[in-house]
Amino acid sequence: MVLTVEVSQRRPQLSLQDYVDGVVAGDRAVLGRAVTLLESRAPRHRLLAAELLTALMPRTGGALRVGLTGTPGVGKSTLIERLGLKLVGAGHRLAVLAIDPSSTRTGGSILGDKTRMTRLSNHPNAFVRPSPSAGTLGGVAARTREALLLMEAAGFDVVLIETVGVGQSETVVADMTDSFVVLLLSGAGDELQGIKRGLLERAEVLAVNKADGANAELAERAARRYRSAMHTLHPHDAPWMPPVLTCSGQTGAGLGDLWSAVERHRGWQRDAGVLQRRRQEQALRWMWDLVDDRLREALREHPRVAASLPSLERGVREGTLPPTAAADALLRSFLG
Amino acid sequence: MVLTVEVSQRRPQLSLQDYVDGVVAGDRAVLGRAVTLLESRAPRHRLLAAELLTALMPRTGGALRVGLTGTPGVGKSTLIERLGLKLVGAGHRLAVLAIDPSSTRTGGSILGDKTRMTRLSNHPNAFVRPSPSAGTLGGVAARTREALLLMEAAGFDVVLIETVGVGQSETVVADMTDSFVVLLLSGAGDELQGIKRGLLERAEVLAVNKADGANAELAERAARRYRSAMHTLHPHDAPWMPPVLTCSGQTGAGLGDLWSAVERHRGWQRDAGVLQRRRQEQALRWMWDLVDDRLREALREHPRVAASLPSLERGVREGTLPPTAAADALLRSFLG
Repeated sequence: MVLTVEVSQRRPQLSLQDYVDGVVAGDRAVLGRAVTLLESRAPRHRLLAAELLTALMPRTGGALRVGLTGTPGVGKSTLIERLGLKLVGAGHRLAVLAIDPSSTRTGGSILGDKTRMTRLSNHPNAFVRPSPSAGTLGGVAARTREALLLMEAAGFDVVLIETVGVGQSETVVADMTDSFVVLLLSGAGDELQGIKRGLLERAEVLAVNKADGANAELAERAARRYRSAMHTLHPHDAPWMPPVLTCSGQTGAGLGDLWSAVERHRGWQRDAGVLQRRRQEQALRWMWDLVDDRLREALREHPRVAASLPSLERGVREGTLPPTAAADALLRSFLG
Repeated sequence: MVLTVEVSQRRPQLSLQDYVDGVVAGDRAVLGRAVTLLESRAPRHRLLAAELLTALMPRTGGALRVGLTGTPGVGKSTLIERLGLKLVGAGHRLAVLAIDPSSTRTGGSILGDKTRMTRLSNHPNAFVRPSPSAGTLGGVAARTREALLLMEAAGFDVVLIETVGVGQSETVVADMTDSFVVLLLSGAGDELQGIKRGLLERAEVLAVNKADGANAELAERAARRYRSAMHTLHPHDAPWMPPVLTCSGQTGAGLGDLWSAVERHRGWQRDAGVLQRRRQEQALRWMWDLVDDRLREALREHPRVAASLPSLERGVREGTLPPTAAADALLRSFLG
């Protein structure tokens, strides 16, 4: 009896067509399940996920894809919630995805995702999804890229992908979006300390956040320094000079200007033919990431590799076989 | 005549035996060239580098391998210079290697490596090498791991590998060392803000730096908070409870205790049999990293892949072929 009850309470399995129809109709429950499907590692789920993406492919590409980064403490959640409510209030449909490199390692970041952006999450024209919390950064990136396509197929016209500004996660996000926004804080004279040159080089819109109350003047000063840093990084006749704004996720000040800057950047890219080329290059990079991921898997699942692995691993463990020699042997097993 | 002069001024090429002898003798010039050889991508250099490593393998494993991380601004260079001078003063031979994820992207970090640790660099019993400044984090990690073995073969009994505490670079460093030291700063009540849980979980010795002058009391307070965080992260009967110390790279205060903690950690690991297992697992991970790197290369260099690539890339660029389908086709070309 217990078994029967349990079985009857399970959610019914969805067919490919169910998924396609639900996503295209913007059905939030189906959309949520579709993202979960993408995150599954079970082979039959992966097959279904691949079919779903192929079916939805013609409906993708329509959103403004915005990447947003900033170190923990910069106020990303507060800003995204307020900016997001502004956007949905203006008629946009907004999806928020996240890539959190700390959660990929430990299964959860210190601050946690659950209680964030509650008002935005509950808005009918918004969809907020926390970071996939398992796998390598590369794996999480692949699934986020696929989730982005789902969101476009579901009719969201703005997809915002946020990440904490650490490590490679920001590169990953910049590599899948149209505009890359970097949030900054004013500090006691050390604005440039700890900000990687590579991050500033990739920024397309910069905003010093928490420009409110007693901090407003400090933020303006920091913005001026970042502006001159931008002029050092880019030639004065650069086709796009990244604007440096100030804003406050708390009070909402400057968020209108921030969004205008993002739209202006997108408009310039489209008019200059840059957007198309950028997305083409991103698609190629995606292809290579997939190739590398699947190749890794194919080697690990190969019968000859499985057969030779135990003795090679033993040799490396015992120190009788250098890792370099063991790696050579594994490659020979795989490639024949 | 000019040509003749130029040729005669070129450094003579070293044979495998020259490299082996020079490294084993601790010849600094040869050691520097050997690290450069490891970093080279030219096929004949790579072959020679592999032979060199295999020849030196029996002489490796003898150093205390210490990883050290902390965000930019935490004072790593100052602390390493002072701690390093203390160690060489006490008769140790110390090598300092670095992994800088910002330099791997841009070819140079904002702060730069050149003017750092000048006194230590010039000490006859120290060898300081900046981060390889090209390639992926994985590639840099592989070369740093090999450089570590060179240092051991050259008789350095302490190898310190530093990294800025961003992204995956700290994981990479923790994965190749015996003891992982995390440097922290006191802050205005937000010590835990921005520190990733995963970083604290991997820390084996923690030290709040800049505990000097007016900041000493703040540092003590921060240390107490981190201590209680450690007690939350680890069961109270954990075999190793990471100590949280305070220190000052500027004044040298606490550096003796910091080093004692590192040695105590190493002693505990050896006595408990943990060290051997840890190094075995690291060697296995290294093997897999090599396998994956070489597999990637083998695919890219394969004639059938080279032949099918142009049309697949065109399809992806033009949007007629989903990246997923192109990836499948490339894998089929390679694996036949």
